[in-house]
Amino acid sequence: MRCENDVSKGLSKVKFIAFDFDGVFTDNRVIVSECGEESVLCSRSDGIGLERLREIGIQFAVLSTETNPVVLARCKKLGVPCYSGLSDKLSCLKIVIEQHGLELSEVAFVGNDINDLPCLRSVGFPVAVADAWDEVRSEARHVLKRAGGFGAVREFCDQLYFLNRRAFALENVQGSYE
Amino acid sequence: MRCENDVSKGLSKVKFIAFDFDGVFTDNRVIVSECGEESVLCSRSDGIGLERLREIGIQFAVLSTETNPVVLARCKKLGVPCYSGLSDKLSCLKIVIEQHGLELSEVAFVGNDINDLPCLRSVGFPVAVADAWDEVRSEARHVLKRAGGFGAVREFCDQLYFLNRRAFALENVQGSYE
Amino acid sequence: MRCENDVSKGLSKVKFIAFDFDGVFTDNRVIVSECGEESVLCSRSDGIGLERLREIGIQFAVLSTETNPVVLARCKKLGVPCYSGLSDKLSCLKIVIEQHGLELSEVAFVGNDINDLPCLRSVGFPVAVADAWDEVRSEARHVLKRAGGFGAVREFCDQLYFLNRRAFALENVQGSYE
Amino acid sequence: MRCENDVSKGLSKVKFIAFDFDGVFTDNRVIVSECGEESVLCSRSDGIGLERLREIGIQFAVLSTETNPVVLARCKKLGVPCYSGLSDKLSCLKIVIEQHGLELSEVAFVGNDINDLPCLRSVGFPVAVADAWDEVRSEARHVLKRAGGFGAVREFCDQLYFLNRRAFALENVQGSYE
Repeated sequence: MRCENDVSKGLSKVKFIAFDFDGVFTDNRVIVSECGEESVLCSRSDGIGLERLREIGIQFAVLSTETNPVVLARCKKLGVPCYSGLSDKLSCLKIVIEQHGLELSEVAFVGNDINDLPCLRSVGFPVAVADAWDEVRSEARHVLKRAGGFGAVREFCDQLYFLNRRAFALENVQGSYE
Repeated sequence: MRCENDVSKGLSKVKFIAFDFDGVFTDNRVIVSECGEESVLCSRSDGIGLERLREIGIQFAVLSTETNPVVLARCKKLGVPCYSGLSDKLSCLKIVIEQHGLELSEVAFVGNDINDLPCLRSVGFPVAVADAWDEVRSEARHVLKRAGGFGAVREFCDQLYFLNRRAFALENVQGSYE
Repeated sequence: MRCENDVSKGLSKVKFIAFDFDGVFTDNRVIVSECGEESVLCSRSDGIGLERLREIGIQFAVLSTETNPVVLARCKKLGVPCYSGLSDKLSCLKIVIEQHGLELSEVAFVGNDINDLPCLRSVGFPVAVADAWDEVRSEARHVLKRAGGFGAVREFCDQLYFLNRRAFALENVQGSYE
Repeated sequence: MRCENDVSKGLSKVKFIAFDFDGVFTDNRVIVSECGEESVLCSRSDGIGLERLREIGIQFAVLSTETNPVVLARCKKLGVPCYSGLSDKLSCLKIVIEQHGLELSEVAFVGNDINDLPCLRSVGFPVAVADAWDEVRSEARHVLKRAGGFGAVREFCDQLYFLNRRAFALENVQGSYE
């Protein structure tokens, strides 16, 4: 993890966020019922973070290897575009950001486990949740203070929100001198 | 957060409590099933706290932006009047306390996230749970020791209960000298 | 809480255990679904503790004020006699121990909240789980190290098991000198 | 628990892992619904660990005393052979490893509670999760840093994976000098 200044610089270039789902939107646990139905534990606070991203025009999506429909169920509620059941997240990510007319250098990826490494190594701003596995934390440019499912998504959204609001305010101040 | 003395003074004026739901009655997490059904994690201890409030005649209600019926389900069990799916909690709060013939200065609001700020800024006694977001904690007059879903509601009910029982006892002692 | 020696002396007289359910067999939380169905979080370890009690001939039951059938569901799995929906636990406890031909002085009660106080004050050996409310902890003769739902029941069963096994062993040693 | 060196030596001989289920793949808690349906809390991270074991050719199975079908449901998702409802785990283990043409000395058993002791005492490499009961920890040759349901399975799989990958690399280096 680099110094604070480097993190701010990296954050300021982010135009799109790709999130892993399990371990990022959840605490990486799964509730399994007798008949094999799966449920996950998410944080209500993440929804407000995503709303703030919409306010400042930053887009986002979820990319997950998980095949269970619970990923889609949560993303539908939050209004997050969701690509799940992926064997190759990076190929999907490349297609998605091309559709948005963006470069990988403008993308942040938030992950927690080794199946996120190809994406984390390819994007401009790789982010790990607080409780990511060591193999992942060591490759992230920014490690969040909060764990997945306990506000990690919200924390990252807030960081982008406050940075961009400030940037927007500075633009307007400079503009008034023109 | 002000000093202990200030908190007691503020508490003594409270005649009505408005509670946020998620993050106050719950740990702010939501369990999402494959078909998108939501469940929440609450504390059994809160029910006893609300019973104590009834004993001393303090009324209360839940105000939530959440649209999912799980809020109503929990409030029904606890016998708490519930207003959910609110886009504007403050407008609803004003109507509710007018119906009770009270002023905003006589109301405590217990919240945890930024959608509680308009209410917290308007009531006489703004309260935050222990794990409220910083933007909320900084605007609360009283920060509870317990986190939402782990007895925060009970803690606040108990504080009002013991204060009012003592006030009631003092009244009676003074009365006996008349 | 008294000294270790006093606890052992008290433990040695216990012939029957009455357990509160919520906060003792559970972490005092309740999962509430959209339609109001309730679920609770229990520890698998408690079952082995109860089996050990059966081995040394100590009987037990659950007494709960909770009306929801989830209490019965868990007790059925564990094979624990269960009295739930009680408005007055102490009256029920008196009837139950009379049926067993025992005295209140031979009973341990394990509780966590104020609705357990009448029972805790009446039995010979009042026990509180680690995360019991202060009003309850202060009236217990023995406070467990483990919290409800995280092995508190098992911890207490094990204490009785090892004490009684040792007592049984000592009896046999003395017997061999006769 | 022996020294690091001893652990590596023991690990290098492991050709088969037998896992207990509750408290190893789960946090030893069970969610009980009103109608007695059981669910358990597992970690998504364990699946990646088991995939790594497959990569290096180490086989595994789950042995559980639990009769509830939730054990089978989770094992089916993970693709782990599962023997549940066992009154005698050790007898089952002996049959299973004979079918694989292995000796008990080549087996690791990962457990958390006293019903795992007969297996732990019989295998070559007995392992306990971080939150195993003391009676179990004291008999393990290796105690994991992670608790059951929070990546204990993954941690152990990773240890075997990195050791065997290294062994494989060393073999190849030596081979190039021949």
